[in-house]
Amino acid sequence: MIKFDHTRKARIGLPESVFCEHKSAAMLDEIITQLVEDTARPTLFTRLDAAKFAALDPALAARLDYHPLSRTAFLNGVHDDQGPGRVAIITAGTSDLPVAWEALRTLEHLGLQGTLIPDVGVAGLWRLQERLEEINAHQVIIALAGMDGAMISVIAGLTSRPVIGVPTSVGYGVSAQGLTALNSMLASCSPGVVVVNIDNGYGAACAASRVLRGVRHVPE
Amino acid sequence: MIKFDHTRKARIGLPESVFCEHKSAAMLDEIITQLVEDTARPTLFTRLDAAKFAALDPALAARLDYHPLSRTAFLNGVHDDQGPGRVAIITAGTSDLPVAWEALRTLEHLGLQGTLIPDVGVAGLWRLQERLEEINAHQVIIALAGMDGAMISVIAGLTSRPVIGVPTSVGYGVSAQGLTALNSMLASCSPGVVVVNIDNGYGAACAASRVLRGVRHVPE
Amino acid sequence: MIKFDHTRKARIGLPESVFCEHKSAAMLDEIITQLVEDTARPTLFTRLDAAKFAALDPALAARLDYHPLSRTAFLNGVHDDQGPGRVAIITAGTSDLPVAWEALRTLEHLGLQGTLIPDVGVAGLWRLQERLEEINAHQVIIALAGMDGAMISVIAGLTSRPVIGVPTSVGYGVSAQGLTALNSMLASCSPGVVVVNIDNGYGAACAASRVLRGVRHVPE
Amino acid sequence: MIKFDHTRKARIGLPESVFCEHKSAAMLDEIITQLVEDTARPTLFTRLDAAKFAALDPALAARLDYHPLSRTAFLNGVHDDQGPGRVAIITAGTSDLPVAWEALRTLEHLGLQGTLIPDVGVAGLWRLQERLEEINAHQVIIALAGMDGAMISVIAGLTSRPVIGVPTSVGYGVSAQGLTALNSMLASCSPGVVVVNIDNGYGAACAASRVLRGVRHVPE
Amino acid sequence: MIKFDHTRKARIGLPESVFCEHKSAAMLDEIITQLVEDTARPTLFTRLDAAKFAALDPALAARLDYHPLSRTAFLNGVHDDQGPGRVAIITAGTSDLPVAWEALRTLEHLGLQGTLIPDVGVAGLWRLQERLEEINAHQVIIALAGMDGAMISVIAGLTSRPVIGVPTSVGYGVSAQGLTALNSMLASCSPGVVVVNIDNGYGAACAASRVLRGVRHVPE
Amino acid sequence: MIKFDHTRKARIGLPESVFCEHKSAAMLDEIITQLVEDTARPTLFTRLDAAKFAALDPALAARLDYHPLSRTAFLNGVHDDQGPGRVAIITAGTSDLPVAWEALRTLEHLGLQGTLIPDVGVAGLWRLQERLEEINAHQVIIALAGMDGAMISVIAGLTSRPVIGVPTSVGYGVSAQGLTALNSMLASCSPGVVVVNIDNGYGAACAASRVLRGVRHVPE
Amino acid sequence: MIKFDHTRKARIGLPESVFCEHKSAAMLDEIITQLVEDTARPTLFTRLDAAKFAALDPALAARLDYHPLSRTAFLNGVHDDQGPGRVAIITAGTSDLPVAWEALRTLEHLGLQGTLIPDVGVAGLWRLQERLEEINAHQVIIALAGMDGAMISVIAGLTSRPVIGVPTSVGYGVSAQGLTALNSMLASCSPGVVVVNIDNGYGAACAASRVLRGVRHVPE
Amino acid sequence: MIKFDHTRKARIGLPESVFCEHKSAAMLDEIITQLVEDTARPTLFTRLDAAKFAALDPALAARLDYHPLSRTAFLNGVHDDQGPGRVAIITAGTSDLPVAWEALRTLEHLGLQGTLIPDVGVAGLWRLQERLEEINAHQVIIALAGMDGAMISVIAGLTSRPVIGVPTSVGYGVSAQGLTALNSMLASCSPGVVVVNIDNGYGAACAASRVLRGVRHVPE
Repeated sequence: MIKFDHTRKARIGLPESVFCEHKSAAMLDEIITQLVEDTARPTLFTRLDAAKFAALDPALAARLDYHPLSRTAFLNGVHDDQGPGRVAIITAGTSDLPVAWEALRTLEHLGLQGTLIPDVGVAGLWRLQERLEEINAHQVIIALAGMDGAMISVIAGLTSRPVIGVPTSVGYGVSAQGLTALNSMLASCSPGVVVVNIDNGYGAACAASRVLRGVRHVPE
Repeated sequence: MIKFDHTRKARIGLPESVFCEHKSAAMLDEIITQLVEDTARPTLFTRLDAAKFAALDPALAARLDYHPLSRTAFLNGVHDDQGPGRVAIITAGTSDLPVAWEALRTLEHLGLQGTLIPDVGVAGLWRLQERLEEINAHQVIIALAGMDGAMISVIAGLTSRPVIGVPTSVGYGVSAQGLTALNSMLASCSPGVVVVNIDNGYGAACAASRVLRGVRHVPE
Repeated sequence: MIKFDHTRKARIGLPESVFCEHKSAAMLDEIITQLVEDTARPTLFTRLDAAKFAALDPALAARLDYHPLSRTAFLNGVHDDQGPGRVAIITAGTSDLPVAWEALRTLEHLGLQGTLIPDVGVAGLWRLQERLEEINAHQVIIALAGMDGAMISVIAGLTSRPVIGVPTSVGYGVSAQGLTALNSMLASCSPGVVVVNIDNGYGAACAASRVLRGVRHVPE
Repeated sequence: MIKFDHTRKARIGLPESVFCEHKSAAMLDEIITQLVEDTARPTLFTRLDAAKFAALDPALAARLDYHPLSRTAFLNGVHDDQGPGRVAIITAGTSDLPVAWEALRTLEHLGLQGTLIPDVGVAGLWRLQERLEEINAHQVIIALAGMDGAMISVIAGLTSRPVIGVPTSVGYGVSAQGLTALNSMLASCSPGVVVVNIDNGYGAACAASRVLRGVRHVPE
Repeated sequence: MIKFDHTRKARIGLPESVFCEHKSAAMLDEIITQLVEDTARPTLFTRLDAAKFAALDPALAARLDYHPLSRTAFLNGVHDDQGPGRVAIITAGTSDLPVAWEALRTLEHLGLQGTLIPDVGVAGLWRLQERLEEINAHQVIIALAGMDGAMISVIAGLTSRPVIGVPTSVGYGVSAQGLTALNSMLASCSPGVVVVNIDNGYGAACAASRVLRGVRHVPE
Repeated sequence: MIKFDHTRKARIGLPESVFCEHKSAAMLDEIITQLVEDTARPTLFTRLDAAKFAALDPALAARLDYHPLSRTAFLNGVHDDQGPGRVAIITAGTSDLPVAWEALRTLEHLGLQGTLIPDVGVAGLWRLQERLEEINAHQVIIALAGMDGAMISVIAGLTSRPVIGVPTSVGYGVSAQGLTALNSMLASCSPGVVVVNIDNGYGAACAASRVLRGVRHVPE
Repeated sequence: MIKFDHTRKARIGLPESVFCEHKSAAMLDEIITQLVEDTARPTLFTRLDAAKFAALDPALAARLDYHPLSRTAFLNGVHDDQGPGRVAIITAGTSDLPVAWEALRTLEHLGLQGTLIPDVGVAGLWRLQERLEEINAHQVIIALAGMDGAMISVIAGLTSRPVIGVPTSVGYGVSAQGLTALNSMLASCSPGVVVVNIDNGYGAACAASRVLRGVRHVPE
Repeated sequence: MIKFDHTRKARIGLPESVFCEHKSAAMLDEIITQLVEDTARPTLFTRLDAAKFAALDPALAARLDYHPLSRTAFLNGVHDDQGPGRVAIITAGTSDLPVAWEALRTLEHLGLQGTLIPDVGVAGLWRLQERLEEINAHQVIIALAGMDGAMISVIAGLTSRPVIGVPTSVGYGVSAQGLTALNSMLASCSPGVVVVNIDNGYGAACAASRVLRGVRHVPE
């Protein structure tokens, strides 16, 4: 019997999700069984790869709204909170899309709106500059890049919005499964950049939710 | 002749600051000379240690409002923008105070209000729980910790506010000058934590400013 | 012909076990053949994954009491020493269960009693606080966590019991296969925490045995 | 005003200590001033190097019982609890003595008895074997080594006592300020070894206290 | 067409071997075809795993004397030089056997005699001490260990022979695929230990050959 | 007596220089004495810091044309080869100037022309764009940056010139003394970037010389 | 819809290529579909392994000129620019051939000529010396080596040509997937070596193109 | 009272030495006092830097034969054993001399003969080739290099002698205090190279002694 943190949403504004990477299909079946009848509790499953999804009990799997590219699934729908703002998700390249979609799906689960703006990496700087106005029409920017992570410094030097960097494990050799992008973002020459773990599209979306919802809870 | 990014504040809401760590006193003298007459342009100097401050041209040094603990200085006063919110700066221990003060001074430079709440590390959990309501009365939380960085996960599990983690280089051995606290924060089991570079109180304050000011620029 | 350390139990109170990870099925068949007739000598096999177990000689495999989740097997039963105390095994999350079970099975092999208390990670702090009294009713605490390893600092700040931290390889990116949890535990801000290798549930149980049995051997 | 965790001893059996490494002399003066009149509260100061001790306010420094080799100081005496057992502190070489003395002084502060047995490194194995009986007459063993950390595996293969490894930053090149000794101890081929942070004599003594005092609190 | 270093044996006493790990079966087929007719030139193939061996052209594979455990193969027999001495190959555990056999097979290829003495790891010190005289009857000692690599320091403290340490990738977690054993051996507290790359049984045997043959070439 | 590689210039187009970092003042005095009379042989000294320069024999020091910011000195003038092109040296910030000057001085020593274009880091992108035409009027670009090293990807996406990246040790925390800038440059998303060691302004200038002189030696 | 950087060739002399490693076959099908009709735009695909190539839509795959060893493919032919020079690609060993071929194919794609000179590693120094004149008949040298990367220092000490080092992931243990070769090249004792990422044959060829074409664009 | 391993020389052919790096002057005074009267026991002190030597009790320091460059001292003379062979100590550059001299002094202490052959690094390959015959006239080769460590692969490809690599901490940036040279030597493409810790001239000399003396102890 799994012990859920069912008061998490009331406490911090974010419900508990299920991180599937280290759990066997059998464990996940047990978790879904526990959660499935509580239809008022939409739950997000992350890092659920296609092979593990295929290994689930078919009757339980049928209850999931599964999205292979992002490796996410919704159980019992999504939260229908009215989102207070919009989030731009920009990527340096096409290879960053799986993580970008994890962020998009998490926003959807949380009842927030996200816009995906891919392929604005700085090797071709004009692509980012061309879409700057569109990006700035959002309230929070989630910026994904692998390899050198250089895009984050450029965008943060061009916008006043909060910029949440998500290093991706795109690249090879010294890219080190995203570590160079991570360190590059943390050491950004542009001020006020914040960063989450490598490939953590989920965490970036949660952070955007804190910015959009957590700030406004304060009576002024 | 140094080339400043004088349009930065208009562009991104944050003025260019002077990072002193790798600059000689002679370079800094030249920088101050360039900036000192432009009294409408408050400028922040960071990581200006006491020895380097003492090596400045005394006439120029006299123009600085220097704060040794935080290693920061103000030139031409601070920005008097009306801040839209308040920032709580919490620390795990007393050893984190220099970085906490760098964040506080940066907030002051930017015209924002910060409250310092020290010594709420989780080895004595009651200290954090005792002050939780006070912390939650702020709109953004900057959380500093060295060693294990564990406080960030606990506070992020107790509040809906945006939580900006600042790992500090406090500790020895495997603490690795803050690297363990950094990684621990990035790998936090609590959702939506964001992180800046080790000892980067300046960056955390800039990020808080983006959250408080950058979000509201969007017409809805 | 393998050379066993058959005097180990008499010498240090812990019998030699068989670490299977780098041994081929053929090597293991040879080892089991050597050990199987010595029915007075219960032996533990660790890190025996399901594929390797399936590759063993069926006649030999039938002599093993195999437990897939923990990847352990008993040969010739377990030690029936009367255990002098009880060990609490607490986990931050469900993903830590395989390692927790390795510790539980090792305790069983050694004739000691363990209690599994899962899902008390600090993202939802109330779960740990709710079960603190139950945890403290044990004499030694084995605490497992991956990711940030933060739970160890919180529990060690709440109990006077010996706390043996077991970092697990749960997480991704900077979690670095458990290295961040390991370093976080070693750098714990709570005093007197001790740590074993990543995923080393076996070692933690052996250490608990040293605490429960090794200390009392001293005539006072 | 520093916020102490004054209930720590009641809660976990270990009083809060003052870690001096990252604190300025001015901060320490403030801390001593807060603590000095509370003469019923013996406090330990760790990693207080000679230069910083010399920079303290002389009137306050005079209240400290300072021990340069171990970089520790006692304020308001030591705890006079009746210790339930004895701890052997063994070192591989003479260079490990400063950390060994930090452990010894911490034991004294906690009211426990320790015996120092230096220079039993395995390059000359006879030295350890010659003193094995003496070592085993203690209830807990704290074992310090730098460089290869090999002594820990040998002693743990010869005794049933709990063995707490303390890697020291002795060595150069690949010794990596104690990291190799740390990893070697964590990867020990002998079962049931537990380890603390590099140079953490303080933590090892606290762990020994948990073993000697924390275990017996349980009613059986 | 591959370019061989056919003068290597005349130049340095060691013939060129074929390192198979990064070569496709097709490349190896081409290499064997080039070498196979030169029957006076015995050639050693290393790190040729079973899957790659199975993928070779069967007619060519039939010309190889393949040994799966060590992943080595002989082509055109072995060198029949009269070896001037004997080499002891000692291992800490059974898991080190594949690398030990790579060393043994390399010695055989070079016309030297080796004796395998397994399972003398220091967790059970008596095993090493029991066989010390036998080990010392050899002129060079190749010592293999994974995990903590502690055996190397113990044996080097007990013998005057040259000791060549071979760290193996046995272990998990901080063992780091042999890196901890490597560093532990390099940082050995015993004087005069030399080390080769992780799992490099081939290199250790070549080094033994240099010691046994290279030294004697000098007219005195 | 030092053994110089006096044929190096004839062989590879670059004379041997003296790397001072690990040499004592006494060693350098000996080297200068050997070289000083050979007035046809201009020699460059690199990484000669002010303290070491001050410790040289004054009579010998007087023969050096010393430049403190770059820590370089010329002995016997510079090479007066007619340089075939011009090199732009661009820096992200003011803190990169010491390394930029090492490159400039090396170019001067080699008889090549360099132009310093500082402060064009991408936090304020307009600065780089404003000077792009000027930069492109050079034949080779040496680009220096610390922290995130992001400038290299942006400039390489805007120019067809060879771009030689020089990571500098500017920054703190994850900047890791230039390692993050190095890795970021090596993992650049812009094609055809090449990189030298951290702070290696000397090597970058030598590489520029190879490009400008080495290529043209080929008869077509 | 992917956003290509179609102005890249006009801007920097190098067209955008498609890096396939992190893209699914479905993504690649979409990319090929977008590009296939634009027959005037030759496009290079890199790191397209055989399994992924086999998973492409057969009709699209048929449009590719695929080369398995180098994992590259051409779409719409190659650029027929008249190359201004020739590039020597030298390798330390046979295992470096896949990366060497990636460089060769990239040169072909760019309309440049390359010559492959394999197996000139320094373990048999005569092989490099024997072919030095042939190597020097080229204008740029791309030098590939794994393991110790030592060849780069030797060749750079023998030629005045630009030398572009490509570390390869050949080796095991401390070779660390090419990191040791990379660092060895960056720390080369020979002056003016430049380096690209591990296994980055593509980048080395692009850098060669910058040297051969980018330099000559400057009017003098 | 220090516990010496006085039987070490009888046991392994190498006497115990005193490693001074982590010992205070006071500790060293105590050690010298213990050893000084035992005039039949020549003792070597290593890593005794000039400042620490100057801090010794002058009466004791006067008993030492101190050599600043190598940071070694002899007490009670040297061993007058008749050495059975000669050792060549070759260095890549002048900066390696302190470590080379540590090896030379250790050989002298052990009663062995060494020849120093400096400045034969491979950037100027002719220097090594010019002296190859002289080098080969020795029975063992100790080869020192920092930076890329490339010399070791070249010399090992040219000689049949045992080659003991000593990486030195010469270099900067990625040289990483000798780590790159160490890894490069361990990953050498030349067979049979053995390696000691960074800057460990002492260990290399001890290993040479094992080769020269330890091998011959075997009756054949």
